[in-house]
Amino acid sequence: MAKIIDGKQIAEEVKTKLKNKIESLKENGITPHLSVLLIGDNPASHVYVSMKEKACSKLKISSEVRRLSKELSQEEVIKNVEELNNNKDVNGILIQLPLPKHLNENEILMKINPQKDVDGLHPVNFGKLLAGNPEFVPCTPAGILEILEYENIDPEGKHAVVVGRSNIVGKPIAALLMRKAKGGNATVTVCHTRTKETAHFTRQADILIAAMGVPETITGDMVKEGAVVIDVGMNRVDDPTAKKGYRLVGDVHFESVEKKVKAITPVPGGVGPLTIAMLMKNTVLAAKNQNLS
Amino acid sequence: MAKIIDGKQIAEEVKTKLKNKIESLKENGITPHLSVLLIGDNPASHVYVSMKEKACSKLKISSEVRRLSKELSQEEVIKNVEELNNNKDVNGILIQLPLPKHLNENEILMKINPQKDVDGLHPVNFGKLLAGNPEFVPCTPAGILEILEYENIDPEGKHAVVVGRSNIVGKPIAALLMRKAKGGNATVTVCHTRTKETAHFTRQADILIAAMGVPETITGDMVKEGAVVIDVGMNRVDDPTAKKGYRLVGDVHFESVEKKVKAITPVPGGVGPLTIAMLMKNTVLAAKNQNLS
Repeated sequence: MAKIIDGKQIAEEVKTKLKNKIESLKENGITPHLSVLLIGDNPASHVYVSMKEKACSKLKISSEVRRLSKELSQEEVIKNVEELNNNKDVNGILIQLPLPKHLNENEILMKINPQKDVDGLHPVNFGKLLAGNPEFVPCTPAGILEILEYENIDPEGKHAVVVGRSNIVGKPIAALLMRKAKGGNATVTVCHTRTKETAHFTRQADILIAAMGVPETITGDMVKEGAVVIDVGMNRVDDPTAKKGYRLVGDVHFESVEKKVKAITPVPGGVGPLTIAMLMKNTVLAAKNQNLS
Repeated sequence: MAKIIDGKQIAEEVKTKLKNKIESLKENGITPHLSVLLIGDNPASHVYVSMKEKACSKLKISSEVRRLSKELSQEEVIKNVEELNNNKDVNGILIQLPLPKHLNENEILMKINPQKDVDGLHPVNFGKLLAGNPEFVPCTPAGILEILEYENIDPEGKHAVVVGRSNIVGKPIAALLMRKAKGGNATVTVCHTRTKETAHFTRQADILIAAMGVPETITGDMVKEGAVVIDVGMNRVDDPTAKKGYRLVGDVHFESVEKKVKAITPVPGGVGPLTIAMLMKNTVLAAKNQNLS
């Protein structure tokens, strides 16, 4: 039976370490501050953002959420970003994705001051990550690295297979796992919707990262005995027996995969808590960089 | 027997198309200009730079090479870059790599105005490439895409294996081949010095990119029948029978690989000519962007 990786506990340990850093910043008169732009009424985005607010509050990181209409124009969004850029009290800026379809995501992300880009998606930060000198690492990939480190799983020399090529997970985790540094040095394969026979690749994975956003797609027959499986999916599936009418499942079919592998992250309670913890970590880093360097 | 891909011919066709663009720019009073910083006395770098100068001259692109002492300090190099950034007549800036070891390459590349970064190595351009909206693509990866397109080799759904994870070739070509766009959509594996049993991966490759900089390492037993092999290597190997005392070989052992594969680029005359042609293309693009947008 697989070890079920306890993402909540790992996140708690990350946050405990952060508390000390935040206290010592406060002794220097610095309170880290995160501003979030939440545009439109995507229900999942609203849930994620309240979780981020709660995490800030628990850690005594100051936070503000601008909940803005889905009708907002490109220019108005950019105006908001620029206000936050110019506000010295704002250390971190997060634009909750996805944006309403009429907005140009790339252009908006470009406008964030890279020093405040706690989501790590500005091209400068994305480029530094690919070049091998990451500064702000996108939160989910950073959380995956944290899990691997905590569980003493060294990717060096292992075959890591990433399924999904999104900008927020697939591409950055691939770059991180292949980089020439501790926590990297894996041979990395990236699969996606155009891959012929994904199972051919996932079966070779020592470390499998499932990040395609399709419920329960990775099944037991698609994994190697003894693999480590990180499930980044967070999908709502209708379930009339559940209180809310739905339940959350990952991109991995947990029951069949769990039987074969060495370790697996559950959904919920796996990667999710780490993603938020890493956002807090990036916000503290931003506050420190902006004030103490 | 494999088709020997004629990089020179493909490069000539690229340059012929460029000539028309350059003429129409000149009709608008614009002469594209490339400035090259060549620091130190690396003999290969001097050869490459003269090839770039010649290519400019043939296409009537204006060029200047600053040949600078290997003793130059970090500050002096940055001062040179800033001068070129501020000079409106300079459209493209290329810093010939590798730099002498006392210099901080990342910091210097960061100083180039991204709009003049014809080598595509500034983090902003590198990040845009990874994010899937490339602007200036590094020249060698751009040349590889050009070869594949010219030879009607569509990477979509194929397994592309990249051996080598350098910033100038391995990482950017991996990002380009996996991107969701025409000329991309391959399943991509990146191998490197820490890969256990590289042959296990190279044998699976439909498209094999050899870019590790180690002479004749990919041998016939390491490739699949019918694969397409792109050899990015350019290594000097002692050869007393040669006029110069050395000959150039790739990272692929040509004789044994050629027998098994469908197509292969030779060294020299494969990727090399394309690299220079793509530098010309980026320079023309920079001149156009800076003047006509």
